[in-house]
Amino acid sequence: MHFTIKKSHLVDALSHVNKAVSAKNAISILTGIKFEISNDGLTLTGSDSDISIQIFIPSVLNEDEIVQIFEPGKIVLPKYTFEIIKKLPNDEIEFKIVDHLTVLIKSGSSEFRLIGFEAEEYPELPQIDQKDIFTIQGKLLKTMIIQTIFAVSTKESRPILTGVLWNLNGQNLKFVATDSHRLAIRESTVENPMGLSFNNVVIPGKSLNELSKILDDHQVPVEVIVTDHQLFVKIDNLVFFSRLLDGTYPDISRIIPEKGKTKIRVQTKEILDAIERVALIAKDAKNNIVKLTTLDNQLLEISSNSLETGKANEQILAKELTGEPIKISFNAKYTIDALKTIDSQEIDIEFTGALSPFVIKPVDHDRMLHLILPIRTY
Amino acid sequence: MHFTIKKSHLVDALSHVNKAVSAKNAISILTGIKFEISNDGLTLTGSDSDISIQIFIPSVLNEDEIVQIFEPGKIVLPKYTFEIIKKLPNDEIEFKIVDHLTVLIKSGSSEFRLIGFEAEEYPELPQIDQKDIFTIQGKLLKTMIIQTIFAVSTKESRPILTGVLWNLNGQNLKFVATDSHRLAIRESTVENPMGLSFNNVVIPGKSLNELSKILDDHQVPVEVIVTDHQLFVKIDNLVFFSRLLDGTYPDISRIIPEKGKTKIRVQTKEILDAIERVALIAKDAKNNIVKLTTLDNQLLEISSNSLETGKANEQILAKELTGEPIKISFNAKYTIDALKTIDSQEIDIEFTGALSPFVIKPVDHDRMLHLILPIRTY
Repeated sequence: MHFTIKKSHLVDALSHVNKAVSAKNAISILTGIKFEISNDGLTLTGSDSDISIQIFIPSVLNEDEIVQIFEPGKIVLPKYTFEIIKKLPNDEIEFKIVDHLTVLIKSGSSEFRLIGFEAEEYPELPQIDQKDIFTIQGKLLKTMIIQTIFAVSTKESRPILTGVLWNLNGQNLKFVATDSHRLAIRESTVENPMGLSFNNVVIPGKSLNELSKILDDHQVPVEVIVTDHQLFVKIDNLVFFSRLLDGTYPDISRIIPEKGKTKIRVQTKEILDAIERVALIAKDAKNNIVKLTTLDNQLLEISSNSLETGKANEQILAKELTGEPIKISFNAKYTIDALKTIDSQEIDIEFTGALSPFVIKPVDHDRMLHLILPIRTY
Repeated sequence: MHFTIKKSHLVDALSHVNKAVSAKNAISILTGIKFEISNDGLTLTGSDSDISIQIFIPSVLNEDEIVQIFEPGKIVLPKYTFEIIKKLPNDEIEFKIVDHLTVLIKSGSSEFRLIGFEAEEYPELPQIDQKDIFTIQGKLLKTMIIQTIFAVSTKESRPILTGVLWNLNGQNLKFVATDSHRLAIRESTVENPMGLSFNNVVIPGKSLNELSKILDDHQVPVEVIVTDHQLFVKIDNLVFFSRLLDGTYPDISRIIPEKGKTKIRVQTKEILDAIERVALIAKDAKNNIVKLTTLDNQLLEISSNSLETGKANEQILAKELTGEPIKISFNAKYTIDALKTIDSQEIDIEFTGALSPFVIKPVDHDRMLHLILPIRTY
């Protein structure tokens, strides 16, 4: 293995690949990054066995020579190679295997000799079937992740709930997340020329969290492939792999109430700010409880009460307030989490009683729904 | 107690006072902030008994009415009052004691009733003798703190070394910090019209860390008073109090070598970058050891070596290199810490042997000195 590469391209690629690599992995070779140089360019691979990220840097890009290849080859280098590369003084970096597992890295007057791992021992990544693809805008995928992932369970007691359910039906992609106290649904339209459909595909929340960070800079269409055990997301020259969660996701269709008995239309920011302030009083208290009460003249009261710290109340003028009066207590954090992901200016909240879950929906579209379980306080 | 106050002024003041307040203090009243309203304005006090911060907000500032006073009084409110104040919707906030220890805070349609502590039980702050003052520019004081504080000891085995020694002699203020492996000295000229002098005044590093944060925005002259047990720093309407450390600071005058046997002049950034890169190899190793070797033709080699991770070496062309050749090993982190605080472009490094402490000094002035103990590696 012997090649030179432009520093900025290598730093960019390593910054992504590194996200899949943990310095503390029981499988020691996975603490490294695989460098594989062919006659076409450099392929970098990082993996923690749950998530893998692979990037290809072509030797020539837009007529610029990025990688100059003298001898193909491969090796696995430690994760902190990235730290070294970032700090090298020159724009060009030379890599050369000088002795079995020793790689010489040269840039200006800096010379590093790093001891790597045998590339043959690096686990094979799953093969991708390039046929069964659907396509979604990277930015939209990121938004869908952010608008659901907060609701996944962080407890391992029901592992299936630590993931987000993906459901593809025609042009409709649907994400569902719940920790059994609150639930978030987000749908959107994707390009599905192959007419694919799947159900009960559950992606670990941790994987989607990493994926959303990678999607940050990519407002381009991304290709998605789902197999029995893996998710593949292809963004330019980057491929993101995640294992799927085993098990059956609970049927959530029956827990969403059809029609509420009380309906409130309010400005998203106004009710979010009020709940955030009032919640400060309830912060140390168990469950972070806040109470919503309908008053006369389309007024809402948001309040909280703590023996130790005091009381807080806020009044909000609703845009609309119809149906039965209601007094309901709920977890402020769950509600704040949901409201923060809503980018619509106005929301509808529908209640079916003080002990039934209530629904929050944006006014301007029907592709998002939040469900929150109330708290019994008497 | 009953007053209204402009939100922005209260938020500013609380952001400083809050720095002295810990939500977990064994003395429960110190988890709060003291509000004291007189006919002149509002005084806020926070303290963790090591550090205290007091700010006075005058009722009128530049002909603007900041505080409108209806009834003087005092109370201690919980630390998170700051979080509530920050989020209140209106620019004007009303405070009123409505029942013994209950304070009503109103702003727009928000109402909070907070339960406070009895102000009479709040500890008295030490009295300041306004006479014995010397004056220093806030920005310079901050710089002097930053350029020494990193060298204080974090171990409680010799408590006196967890502080920075202050020494005033005529117009000369001198800071010294050491953890017995490295030492930092910074001197500067101050205004001392009273001809004050002191020695063996040792300020806890933790206090100076907080003080440096407060000094951030203040490029104004600050007044400093040192008594037997306390430091007072007065910045506009803010007074910062810190206790002093008990004990005798070690005499450091004899450990600074008079004249080196090897003298190197190099660019600060060039040697800092080289040491930072080479240190990446030595990162996991004990002591973070890096080696400096003088070569021919005014060249320096910076290198490190680890059985597990590999080798690194860098060559630097010195501006000057005189005296005996040297090969010396040292702790990279200590040296990087020191070099990072130097704002001069060039430095002199003087060695008196591989086992003696070496000295780093800026070329363009003599108000700063770093001393670093080498590491024996054979």
